[in-house]
Parts: sequence; structure tokens; C-alpha cells
Amino acid sequence: MKTWYGFAKGKTDGDQTMRNLLGGKGANLAEMCALGIPVPPGFTLPTSLCVEYTQSGASTLSADVRQAIAEGIGFIEENLPGTKLGDKNKPLLVSVRSGARVSMPGMMDTVLNVGLTKETVEALSETTGNRRFALDSYRRLIQMYGDVVKGVDRELLEEPLEMLKKEEGVTFDSELSVEALERLVEKLSAVYKQETGDDFPQDPKAQIEEAVAAVFQSWGGKRAISYRAINRIPDDWGTAANVQAMVFGNFSATSATGVAFTRDPSTGENCVMGEWLPNAQGEDVVAGIRTPGPLDEKDAADSDVGSLEDKMPEADRELREVMAVLEKHYKDMQDIEFTVQDDQLYLLQTRHGKRTAKAALQIALEMVDEGLIDTRTAVSRVSPEQIDQLMHPQIDPAAEKDFLAKGLPASPGAASGLVVLDADTAEAQAKEGQAVILVRKETSPEDIHGMHAAKGILTQTGGMTSHAAVVARGMGRTCVAGCAALSIDEAAGTVTIRGESGERTIKAGDQITLDGSAGEVYLGEVPTIESDLGGDFAKFLGWADEIREVKVRANADSPEDAQNAINLGAEGIGLCRTEHMFFGPDRIGAVREMILADDTQARERALAKLEPMQRSDFEGIFKAMAGKPVTIRLLDPPLHEFLPHDEADMQELAGILGTDLATLKRKNESLHEFNPMLGHRGCRLGLTYPEVYSMQARAIVDAACAVMDADIEVLPEIMIPLIMHPHELKRLRAQVQEIIDAKAATREAMPNILIGTMIELPRAALVADQVAEYADFYSFGTNDLTQTTLGLSRDDSGKFLPFYVEEGFWAADPFASLDQSGVGVLVELGTRLGRKAKPGLKVGVCGEHGGDPASIEFFVNNGLDYVSCSPFRVPIARIAAAHAALNKG
Amino acid sequence: MKTWYGFAKGKTDGDQTMRNLLGGKGANLAEMCALGIPVPPGFTLPTSLCVEYTQSGASTLSADVRQAIAEGIGFIEENLPGTKLGDKNKPLLVSVRSGARVSMPGMMDTVLNVGLTKETVEALSETTGNRRFALDSYRRLIQMYGDVVKGVDRELLEEPLEMLKKEEGVTFDSELSVEALERLVEKLSAVYKQETGDDFPQDPKAQIEEAVAAVFQSWGGKRAISYRAINRIPDDWGTAANVQAMVFGNFSATSATGVAFTRDPSTGENCVMGEWLPNAQGEDVVAGIRTPGPLDEKDAADSDVGSLEDKMPEADRELREVMAVLEKHYKDMQDIEFTVQDDQLYLLQTRHGKRTAKAALQIALEMVDEGLIDTRTAVSRVSPEQIDQLMHPQIDPAAEKDFLAKGLPASPGAASGLVVLDADTAEAQAKEGQAVILVRKETSPEDIHGMHAAKGILTQTGGMTSHAAVVARGMGRTCVAGCAALSIDEAAGTVTIRGESGERTIKAGDQITLDGSAGEVYLGEVPTIESDLGGDFAKFLGWADEIREVKVRANADSPEDAQNAINLGAEGIGLCRTEHMFFGPDRIGAVREMILADDTQARERALAKLEPMQRSDFEGIFKAMAGKPVTIRLLDPPLHEFLPHDEADMQELAGILGTDLATLKRKNESLHEFNPMLGHRGCRLGLTYPEVYSMQARAIVDAACAVMDADIEVLPEIMIPLIMHPHELKRLRAQVQEIIDAKAATREAMPNILIGTMIELPRAALVADQVAEYADFYSFGTNDLTQTTLGLSRDDSGKFLPFYVEEGFWAADPFASLDQSGVGVLVELGTRLGRKAKPGLKVGVCGEHGGDPASIEFFVNNGLDYVSCSPFRVPIARIAAAHAALNKG
Repeated sequence: MKTWYGFAKGKTDGDQTMRNLLGGKGANLAEMCALGIPVPPGFTLPTSLCVEYTQSGASTLSADVRQAIAEGIGFIEENLPGTKLGDKNKPLLVSVRSGARVSMPGMMDTVLNVGLTKETVEALSETTGNRRFALDSYRRLIQMYGDVVKGVDRELLEEPLEMLKKEEGVTFDSELSVEALERLVEKLSAVYKQETGDDFPQDPKAQIEEAVAAVFQSWGGKRAISYRAINRIPDDWGTAANVQAMVFGNFSATSATGVAFTRDPSTGENCVMGEWLPNAQGEDVVAGIRTPGPLDEKDAADSDVGSLEDKMPEADRELREVMAVLEKHYKDMQDIEFTVQDDQLYLLQTRHGKRTAKAALQIALEMVDEGLIDTRTAVSRVSPEQIDQLMHPQIDPAAEKDFLAKGLPASPGAASGLVVLDADTAEAQAKEGQAVILVRKETSPEDIHGMHAAKGILTQTGGMTSHAAVVARGMGRTCVAGCAALSIDEAAGTVTIRGESGERTIKAGDQITLDGSAGEVYLGEVPTIESDLGGDFAKFLGWADEIREVKVRANADSPEDAQNAINLGAEGIGLCRTEHMFFGPDRIGAVREMILADDTQARERALAKLEPMQRSDFEGIFKAMAGKPVTIRLLDPPLHEFLPHDEADMQELAGILGTDLATLKRKNESLHEFNPMLGHRGCRLGLTYPEVYSMQARAIVDAACAVMDADIEVLPEIMIPLIMHPHELKRLRAQVQEIIDAKAATREAMPNILIGTMIELPRAALVADQVAEYADFYSFGTNDLTQTTLGLSRDDSGKFLPFYVEEGFWAADPFASLDQSGVGVLVELGTRLGRKAKPGLKVGVCGEHGGDPASIEFFVNNGLDYVSCSPFRVPIARIAAAHAALNKG
Repeated sequence: MKTWYGFAKGKTDGDQTMRNLLGGKGANLAEMCALGIPVPPGFTLPTSLCVEYTQSGASTLSADVRQAIAEGIGFIEENLPGTKLGDKNKPLLVSVRSGARVSMPGMMDTVLNVGLTKETVEALSETTGNRRFALDSYRRLIQMYGDVVKGVDRELLEEPLEMLKKEEGVTFDSELSVEALERLVEKLSAVYKQETGDDFPQDPKAQIEEAVAAVFQSWGGKRAISYRAINRIPDDWGTAANVQAMVFGNFSATSATGVAFTRDPSTGENCVMGEWLPNAQGEDVVAGIRTPGPLDEKDAADSDVGSLEDKMPEADRELREVMAVLEKHYKDMQDIEFTVQDDQLYLLQTRHGKRTAKAALQIALEMVDEGLIDTRTAVSRVSPEQIDQLMHPQIDPAAEKDFLAKGLPASPGAASGLVVLDADTAEAQAKEGQAVILVRKETSPEDIHGMHAAKGILTQTGGMTSHAAVVARGMGRTCVAGCAALSIDEAAGTVTIRGESGERTIKAGDQITLDGSAGEVYLGEVPTIESDLGGDFAKFLGWADEIREVKVRANADSPEDAQNAINLGAEGIGLCRTEHMFFGPDRIGAVREMILADDTQARERALAKLEPMQRSDFEGIFKAMAGKPVTIRLLDPPLHEFLPHDEADMQELAGILGTDLATLKRKNESLHEFNPMLGHRGCRLGLTYPEVYSMQARAIVDAACAVMDADIEVLPEIMIPLIMHPHELKRLRAQVQEIIDAKAATREAMPNILIGTMIELPRAALVADQVAEYADFYSFGTNDLTQTTLGLSRDDSGKFLPFYVEEGFWAADPFASLDQSGVGVLVELGTRLGRKAKPGLKVGVCGEHGGDPASIEFFVNNGLDYVSCSPFRVPIARIAAAHAALNKG
């Protein structure tokens, strides 16, 4: 068994596959060296030594490990000719790092500059001609070593530095004089002695040995143990320790430091991108005190520093070679840190580069064209969230913004416009060509036309699945919901915003900007970046479609929505809300007449007016979705949602209905409910007013037959909402079936019409085996299921749910991302029980979670057949579904 | 193997233990005969013959069975000397009945008068001198035989009778002339022939054989098979067939018929009770054409018929002997049917007699005194529902009533009073000594004083666990809730009731009567029967306490309630709703100040005013419950429940708070919630306004310490409501514990204070294993759990839930009796998961179901430690818990 594994350019004992022995970091360093990448030489003490050490209970390293360290140091010195540990001319300095099989916060991380002593610091000072640098390196060592190796209180080690800065009257560490740094070293040495009882060790080898022992010990530290317990990492894995030569970009005039990307992380363009500084340390680039130069000469026009290509052509050439090798090897865009010391290039780190959504898509597409990756890999490289970004305009990150308030990111995108406080004005101003933002306490179905006319919607109350949020997402409008800081005075035409820094008031007609992706509101017009998908997006989505197993449908309520859904790749409609059709100006009158009817006869008269309109809507939708399934939910919301709310509207309605205001008010009041969400709605309406569902079923059946007769394939699915008891479905199914049978008796052929139900109450999930007898399909309505399982009204949770998310009870708003350990249990149970009673039962989801990537992965893992979401989220869902399939492996 | 089992007084082949072979009916007949009871002789063909017959697939009986029938007939003739099957002078007539191991609707039941033919009908006519009777018996045979043996359509067999009655212009069957009956027999014979193809059989033996074959065949009939499938009765049990001699009370002047109870079924008094008629059939007693006489001479003063004791002393003596034997044997009050034929007494049936609640208790108590039964049996004889009746006044069943409307039976009892439409008037009129009924759309906490002052409460909306219902039960007031037919015009002082028969209007000040047990409302004052428990009731409850395993606590919110609960036998308080204390006139001001506070500081100022009041309430309750656990729920309802609702009250409050109406209205509006049941309440308030729970916890801890210092044992349990996530409880538990610890630091000894939670949301039950880590106890809040699991607002379900109960979706309102197959699954799961994580976790229930007998049985079977209910239901719960233990066996 080897006790140490050396790595240096082209010379290595390990490789990427040896993570268990060398840890993640050690294996990666070995891999890079094996590729011939110039990496500062070093060696890895394998995890087995840590396990031995920990099990032995010893407080100092064994002779074997000390021997391994000695040999490893020899290896480094060999590969960094001229340097030697403790040498008075060119001392070898090293870093010591832990590195377990998986990355593990809670363990000792890094000690830099190990090998510096009172003696070697002088050598460093002389060699570099930079006494500041040498002293600063030494004081950093004492601090880091004291902290992470010896466990000295970090505060105590910071205090002398802060006091010194005060004494000297300077702000930045870098402004301290050499003399001050000398005093700092003295003071830190004194603190070190006082806290540990020992002088700061002056033997470089002893420093390394103690640091390695500290790495091994940190495996058994309290934080590491608790991290492992939470993440179920076995205690007997152990950690490796990596000892690696330090290199310095500020070592000499022929030294430099920089960062590089193998492709442009903003645009994805395949070119060398990056920055460098001569005779500097990495942190100088970050600190922004000096302006770095570009790598490529073509970008160097305005640079004082000049390009690396021009100034250090040899290092530049080598860097480009290395970048090509790395990208080809890792098959992804790399983000590289490099240092040049005395003309010699060293790679300090390479990792997959972060990139914008646009770049992610571009790189994935091009890498497939280049043959570097296959389409599955390409799909895995672009996250659903990035697709989301690409589909909507975004606030320009560089823009100046006057922040007004924060709410919930209810529908993504960015939109600017004039504040309007009611739907009618929104519509009127939009007709005049104005961009408007509709600001409401909460929207109701009566605001639909105004929401449609607006560029964006801002509400004071309501959560991620409030009316405003759901409708805005469905329409593709930007929306910030539940912005509790607002207080709207519609009469005065003002909106007061109470923030931490006091009150501000804006007026109707003022310009504001919404960031629906961040949930933020700004005063004035903030510049945005338009969405830019490009023609290859469809190709990319096609690759995703080949991977995914779950179908993606859309929630759509009109022929226009249906067409939009088709354009965005929907494979059917998972939720068509018939009630949304009720709000058309030509229909609402008949709807209200139906609701206010005093008896069945009057109700049937009103329904007879609605029936042809519903039939024609369904025909349009069926035609748009030719050959694709369309799930139509029968009337769901409580009836009073359709009634007018203010007195003027009521007076008008009374006139139309030929009744008086008092009667209308009484009726209105009699329909009032304390908790409408838990009230007289869904199939409860269907059972108590059977004529309503009969009308709807007839309209569906007649429309389906008409479309079939036009030689268009039609696949209707009638969905009965809010089932809590199998007998509800038994009865309503029979009622609908009777209508189908009656129609069938008049025709030669009939479309195949499925009848199913929503599982949206806990009880329905608990008795899903009994319900299945009467259902051709299940669709989980996870909005309502979340509300009832958590006892949480989506419209009222704005006052406390943010607190829950902030405090980490949930990683995300449970209305936005499925509460997997609560609501998810019922989804799993309902699916399992349903399919136990009826094997192969078709099961989908039509709640808002159908468009959320994390939730989609959950649904895929639980074997659902399809998800359904708003049309604008269909592409995102397609990608997310593909990712879920890839993750399942 | 015997093929038939004879039974006659003192001579029998079988007994009660042979149910499997003889069926229930056969075994009981055998048992009575074994006791020496005079039963008309007969024989039983055992179930094994049915199984053989069914398996053979034959359409006629085997020779063996025919032989058994012949032998059985011989046995009957032997024991009824002089009679003979088909005899022209004294023909034997028999009944043929099925009789399986368990009673089984869906099988052939009974054919009477078998053995009558054209010939024997003449004999019967002659012997009895009653041609009408003979002909009527024959036409009944043809009808019954045709229907149940031959499966002829019953309508066809009824039609001739109906037509004849029309022709003759008579209303009752008994008014038909002899001549008409002769024609009827002819017509029925013709129908029989037409439908079966055969003449009506004239061979008495063949009649019996075919009837027996029909009994056996009915075991394989469609209805019987489906009944067995539903009730999981094995198909291979088979049914027995019983052939028994007919006896006739109208046979002669020395014949009679009657019914008898071994004790008075109204009062329970131990005396002979009953009625008889000479020369009559059982149905004559029922039909009420002749007025029967009493059995006992002491009751005969006003009787035309006279007493059996006087008129037929021999039969009477024998009947009394038989009654004594039967009661002693069956150890329960018996309800007996008897017939005397030619001076010979026959018992036709004996069964446990139905009785009033009062009689049930009286009989159970006396039978224990008499040494007839033990206390366990006594407890099993009185149902919890009967105890409920006994505890409240009841509408006199004999009273004339003017029915107004029907609602939900929300709180039992009967109450009359004047209609008042608001709480203040109710209080004022009650102070003047008026009995009043408070009539409201729905009550709110602001109505409490009026509810207290009223004799009864009537509401238009709201279900079995609405505010009105819960509070009324807690106070022991009669309540009819959710009476949807009402329409209240408070301004006009009228209540309009819309019924099937039109509209009626009553005014404030009119007298009405509520039947809270039936949910009915009557106009005027209807006489009631006062409750009458008697001193032995406590003894009886003591017996129940010895049997039950589950503890019974009460829901009580004040020292008075607590004392009442103790008096009724509560073993602790399972739910003390702190918010009910907030409504006192001296407190509501401070509560409103707390709610309307703009910042934490102002809120703490208001809380400081409330704290001493809460502390003093808790002290009172702890003292009343000395040594018994008291579970106190921290603030639960949404804050806006405490705010005034009408403008005048708001104006007043604004004055008190030194603010303006507009500000108050805005604040009020900002607290408005769309679905308050799912809103900002319970521990969500505790988390967002931690100072509220801290005040309450301090008040509890301080009160507990003060009571402890007065040398009274105190067992406080702090309950945190509406948990949906374990971290809510983790955090709030820590907060409460800190307050306990702070107190402990100032004292030598501390009471042991438990901290637990309610499981009242589906999610809490689903993650009960995680929640248990932070809980010392669980209490299921089944009201809220029902609302969320079923998605059903208790306040809004009045419009459709009655439909569900009427249609049999649920046997009872799920708010009154636990939905065991839905909500019950979560109770079972929550208990199991909780105890898996924390073995021995104390688990109780404090929802309304804690007082419902069927639900209590479910809780007992699921291992709960206690149930808690309103004080007035505690005795009922004690009995129900005992029954549950007895049923578990």
C-alpha cells in the first residue's frame, strides 16, 4: 500500500477514478497532471492514513506518515528545481488542504504559506525584492495556522490587525507599512504563544506535520460529525490530505496571475476570455485596485496592462493549449485560475464555468455540433430555470434601480408601465397604446380583461397560487404578488408603500417597473433585456423530448390558449377551467342569471343560454388540440365568485334581471361563505345543482361529436373536481355517462370520452383505492391539496408564509414547489392506492407544481403519466422532465 | 346425522348452542322448548341439508329430505293431538321459514297457512265457524306462496284485491264480504295458474316440500349472494328451514292473542304489562279496530274487554310463569307475543324488549340489585344515547306541535322561549325573568353573553361544530343550528321561514320551542318532560368507570366550567381555550389594543394588561382541577375574530384607543382573510407575534406555581395549536421552555409542566414521527382535521352536507361522528407514527368527536389515552368508553 501519491505535470501516481483513496481534490489534481497540465507539484496522503490515525487515537502522526511526508516533500522539490523546504535562498512553501471523497464543509479547509519561518521569510523577502509581500505572507500563515491547526479564537488573531490599522489610520490591509507589518508579526506571535503555550513553530517540516495531523483530526471534529450524520456519510471514509507547492504571481516581473474561460460565459461564444495582471496575486485581480488586462490581443485596445498574448506570449500559448486540453477532457466550458511564476505557467484550479442562460444554451448547442458532447449531455447542461430566464425579458443587471418594495416572484419576466388601479382603466389606457401595470389589492375574475391589457400585475395580498399569480402565468404576464408593503387607496388614486426606510406614495399614472422573477418593484422605467431564444431552441427542446418519459400538457381555457400551448410543445390540455369562459362580457349575464335563479326551471333557462357558448368554446379547443387529449374540469369555484361586488354593478345587474337591489343583495349574502375554499364548490355544486354539470357535459359531448364529424381526432376527458368520497364520483359519473349514452343513441360512431377526477383533498388521496373504481384517470390538483394538507389559504398566507421560508422550514414556498414530505406523501399514496385498485390508471398533475422543476422530478419519480402547467412553462417543464429522466439514470 | 330436529314444549332435539346447524331461529325455538315454554310444535331442517341441496344442483328435494319432512310432520301431529295435515276436520296448518346462522335479509322469509287447500279451507271454516277467516287465510297463502315460493310478480297478486275493494266500495281488507273473498280466491288462483302454468297445489305435503325447496334455493338467490358478499358471510354456511304449526287466537271463544312485557318499558317498573284481545289475531291488536284489555286485573277498571287475569285465569297464570322463566333465562326484559288457542297458551316470540331511556337505566339498576345480571352487563344495557336523553329535558312525545323548520340537532334537550334577535336583548330580557331563544344567522364570540342568558339558540347557517353548536354544548344550552329555511331581518325584527308549504313569518317576542335532540323548531310553547336522572345514576356511572380503559376529560374554559366538569366526572381538562377568556367585558378592550398595536412595544403594553387576568383564570381552573391534568391551548383563532364588526362599535373602539375610525377600518381590513380557517391563526400567530405566546406561557407558569404554593397539586399541559411542520413546535417549545426555566431559577420546586401539540392538520399527522421529537403529548383536534381532510368548512357546509347524509354517503354528519375511513386513517397514522418515534407518547382527542359514542369506540380501538368533550357530554362519554371496552372483549 502506497503511503503517498505524488502529482506534477505529466507525473502522477493517481487519477480521477481514485476518489475513495485520494479524496475528490487529490484525484482531480492527479487527473490534471496526468493530462500534462502544469499544476504546482504536490502529493496526497490517502484517506486510509486518516482512518488509521483516527482509529489509533494517537495525538501525533505515526513514523510511517512522517516518512511519507518526507518523501512527498522530496518529490515536490524534485519537480520544482531549486526550491527546498526551509532553504535560506529559495524556500519551498506549501499549502495543506483536506479533501474527502465528497466535498464536506465542517472540516479543516486550507492552510497557505506553510514553510515560512523567521528565517525563510527573509529569504522570500530577498528573492522577491518585496518585503511587504513576504511579511504579509508570514502574518497570514500565523493567523491561518493558529486558527485552523491550533484552534485559537479567530477574533484574537484578527484583533492586532484591526488595532494596527486604527493606529496607522489606514483602511485596507494593503496600506500597512512594512514597519507596521513587522510589528503585526510580533504581536501575532505573542498571541499565538499566549493561546497555545508554544512559540510559533520554526521548523517547516513540523509545520507540515502538524497541519496534516489537524486535517486528519478535523474528520472527527464536531461539525464534521454532525454534517456526516445529516448527509448520511459513513464515518469510516476518512479524509485525504493534500500538500502542494505554493506558487506566486507576484514573485517577480516575469510572474503574473489571471483567470480564464474557455468560452464567453455571457454569450457562449467559442473564444478565449479572461483577465490577467503582471506581478500580482489572485486577490489583486479580485480586489479591483489595479485594472487587469485581457488575455487576447484583439481585446487590448484600451488596456493599460496590455494583453497576455502580447506581453507573455509563451505563457499565453501554453495557457491556450491547456484550455483546449481541459475543455476537451471535461467536455464543458472551464473556468480556470492560473499563475505564472518566473515565466512558468501553473494551473491552480479548473472547474465548470458558471454562465448566463444564453451562454448555457449556446454552448450546449455548439458542443453537440462540434461532436464534443451528445444531446443527452447537452440537455443536462441547461437548467429549466435558465430556460425560464431565456423566455422572458429580464431587468438589465447593470441598470440603476430605485427600489420600492418586495413581494413574491409570482410570474417571471420584467415589465414597465404606468400605474393603474382598476381593470377598466387598464384596458382603456392599453387601447390608447400605453404600457400599464395593473395594481390591485388582489385580483378577481372580474379583473381578467384588465390583466390581459396590462404588461404586468402587482398585488398587495395573495400567494404564489393566488388568482393574480395563476392568471398572470397563464397569460405570460409579469406579476409580483403579495406585496404586503403596499396600501392602495383606489378612491384617492394612490398607493402608499411602507418600507423600513419610511413611507413613499406613488400615484396612478406614475411609471413603475416589475421584476417578476425576483418579486421586486422599482420606481420609473428600468432598462430590460429582451428575451432571445433563437431558432435552435426548438432543436434543443426536441432533444429534451427524446429523453423525458413524462408527458407535458398545458393548462388552457380558450382556443387561443390552446393554440399557444401547442406552439410551445404541449402534448394535450391537462386542465381546461370551464369557469374562465364564464367571464366573457357576453356570458357573465347568463351566468349570474343561472346563479340567482330561484328554482331549477329558472336555472335551466339560464343554462340553456350558456350551453351554445360553452359548446363553441369546446369545439375551438378540440380543433386546436386535434389528436391530443383535452381534460375539461366541470364548474369548480363557489358561485358567489361570479357575482358583482360593488353596489353600482349590483344595481345594474338588478335592472338586467328585472329584480330589485334588496333581493339581489339578500341572495348575494345568502351565497356568502366564511371559508369559500372549503365551501359549496366543485362537485358539491354538481350534486346539488345537477343541471349545471349536465349542461356542461352536453356541451362537451356535442362539441366532441361535431369535431369528430369534421374528421378531426378528438380525445375529451371530463374531469370532476373536489371529490372527497367515492360516491360523489359514482353518482356524477353515472350522470355524465347518461348524457354520453343518449348522444350515442343518435349516432353511428362516438368519440372515446374518459371520465375522471381530481385528487385535491386529503381524503380523496386516503381513499384513492375506492375512488378508482369510478375513474378513468386521476389528476392531482396540488394547489388545493397543498391548501388543505397544510391548512393554508393561498390567498391569506402572505402574512406568515414568507417567515416560514426565511426561517428555512421550507426551502421554497410550498405553493411554488411541492411540499414533498407532506403533500408529496399524499400524492404517492393516492397514486399507489389508485393503481392498486386499477392497474395502469392514468395519473397526472394539473396544479401549479406541474411547471416547477423540483416538483416535476418528484412526479417523475412517483410514476405519474403527465404534468400540466401554464403554456409559458411548457418548455421549462419539458426540460425539467428530461432532467428528471437523466437523474433517474 | 339427524335430518330433522323437532321442538315442542319440553321436548326438543336442539338448543341455543346449535346455531350453526339449526340457524338462529331454529336454535332459539329449540331453546324455548327446552325451557318448558309452550311453543307451537315444529321441526327444523338443518343447514347441512341446504348445503347438500345447493351443491347437488337438483331442482327438487331428495328422497332423504322428503322423508325428513314426513317424519317432522308426524312429530308435530303427535304434539298437537287431533290435528292432521290435510285433515278434513282439524287440518294441521304450518308456517315455513328460512333461518340462517345470522339474520339475513335477502332470503325467503316466511310462508304462513301452508296446508290450506280447497278442501281444508272448508274444514277450517267449519271448525272455527268463521268462513271469512278461513277464506282470508287461504287467499293470503296463495299470495305469499305465489310471491315467495314461485316468484310471481307481487303486483299481479295484489291487483285483484285492490280491484275487488274498489268494486265493493270498501277501504279495508277486513271489510270484504265472504262472497267477495270467495271471488278473490278464484281470481288469485287464476293469476297463479297463468303465471306459473300450474294449478295452485292442493296437496299440503307438496306445499311444504316446495316451500322448503324455495327456502333452500333462496340461499343462492341474487339478493342473498350480494348481501353475503357485502357482509362477508361464507357461501357454504347454508340456511336451515323451520316448519312450525300455526296457532290461531281467533280459533274459538276460548282463544285469544296478546303482547306482554316482563317490565314496564316506559318506567322500568318490575310488573306485568301488556294487552290482549279474546278471539282475535295478532294484527287485530295492531290495527286498533278493537280496544285491547290489560293483562293485570288492577289495570282493568276502564276496560270493556277486561283483564286476561280475570277472563282466562289459567292462561294468565301460565303466561306469568313463562315470563318469569324467560326473563330469568335471558336476563333481560322480554317483549313477548302469545296466542291462546282453545285454552292452550302458545308463545310465538320472545325478544329483548325496547324501552325508554328511563326504563333502560331503571331495569339495569334493579336487575343488578336482584342479582340477575352483573354490573358489566348492566352498563352494556344502557346506550350512551339513552344517557344523553336522560340528561336533558325532552319534548313530550304526546304533545301537539306546530312544526316550523328543521335544522341540525346541534345541542340536545328542549327549550321554549321568546324569540330575540341579538345578544344584548337576550341578556336584558333574561334579567327580567323571561325565557328567551336567541335566533342568529350565526353566532360569534361577541354573542357569548346572550347565549348564556338564553334557554336555547337557533342559527341559520353553520354545522355541528359551528361556533353556536360548540358553545351551546359547552354551556349545556339547547341548540338547533344550520336551519337553512330561516331568513332573519334583524332590522325589521322578523324571521321568515321558507318551507315546502310556503312562507311563514315570526316576530321577535313570539314564543317558539326548540328540540335540540331532533333539530326541530316549533311555534309556541310545546310541553316538555324534564330530565330525571335519580340518585342511582352516579352508581351506574361508577360501574362504567370500572370497565373503561380510556380517560374522559372535559373541554372547559373557565373555573365554573371546570367545576361543572368535575361534578360530571371529568378526569381532567383536555382543552382549555384561552381565547374564550378574551371576551370578558373587562378584557376585550385590552385584547383589541393588543391586536391593533402597530409595533411590538405597543403590543407588549396591551399584553401586560391581559397577563394578570389570564393568570387569575388559570389559577381558578388549576384549583378546581386539583390533582387532575389541565391542557391549555395557546391562542388559536385569527385575530380579526376579536374585533368589532359594526360601525358603531368600531367608532367607540376608535375613541377608546385614541385613533380615528378610518385608521381602525384600514387595520380591520388588513386583518381580513379570505379563508380565515386556513389563515393567520394558531401557532402561526405564536411565531409571528412571539410576545403573545410568551405572555400566555408566563401566565400559566406563574398560576401553576401559585397553586402549587397553596399546596394544591397542579398538572399543567401547554398545548400549541395548528402545527404543520416539526420546526414550528421546536421553536415554540423552546420559547415556552425558556419561560419555565426562568421561573425555575427563582424557586426551589416547580410543577411538572408538559408541552405538547394538537394534531389538526393532515400534514401534522403525515409527519407525526418528526413532530413527536418536540412533543410530550398529542391531542387530535378532529374538528379542524375533519375540515381540512374533507376540505369542508363547518360554517359553510350547511348548504350541501345534509344532502350527503340523506344520500347515505355518510351515516352521520362527519362533524358529529368521526369519518373513520378518511379522517380516521390520519388519526391512526398520526398515533402510530408518533408512538413509533416516541414510545408511550400520551395521545388524546379534544375535538367534538370526543363526546360521540361511535367515535369514542374508534379512539379506544386505536389506543388513545383519553377523550375530551364538553362537560355535559362527560357522562355520555364515560358510558360510551365503557361500551367500547366491552365491545373489544
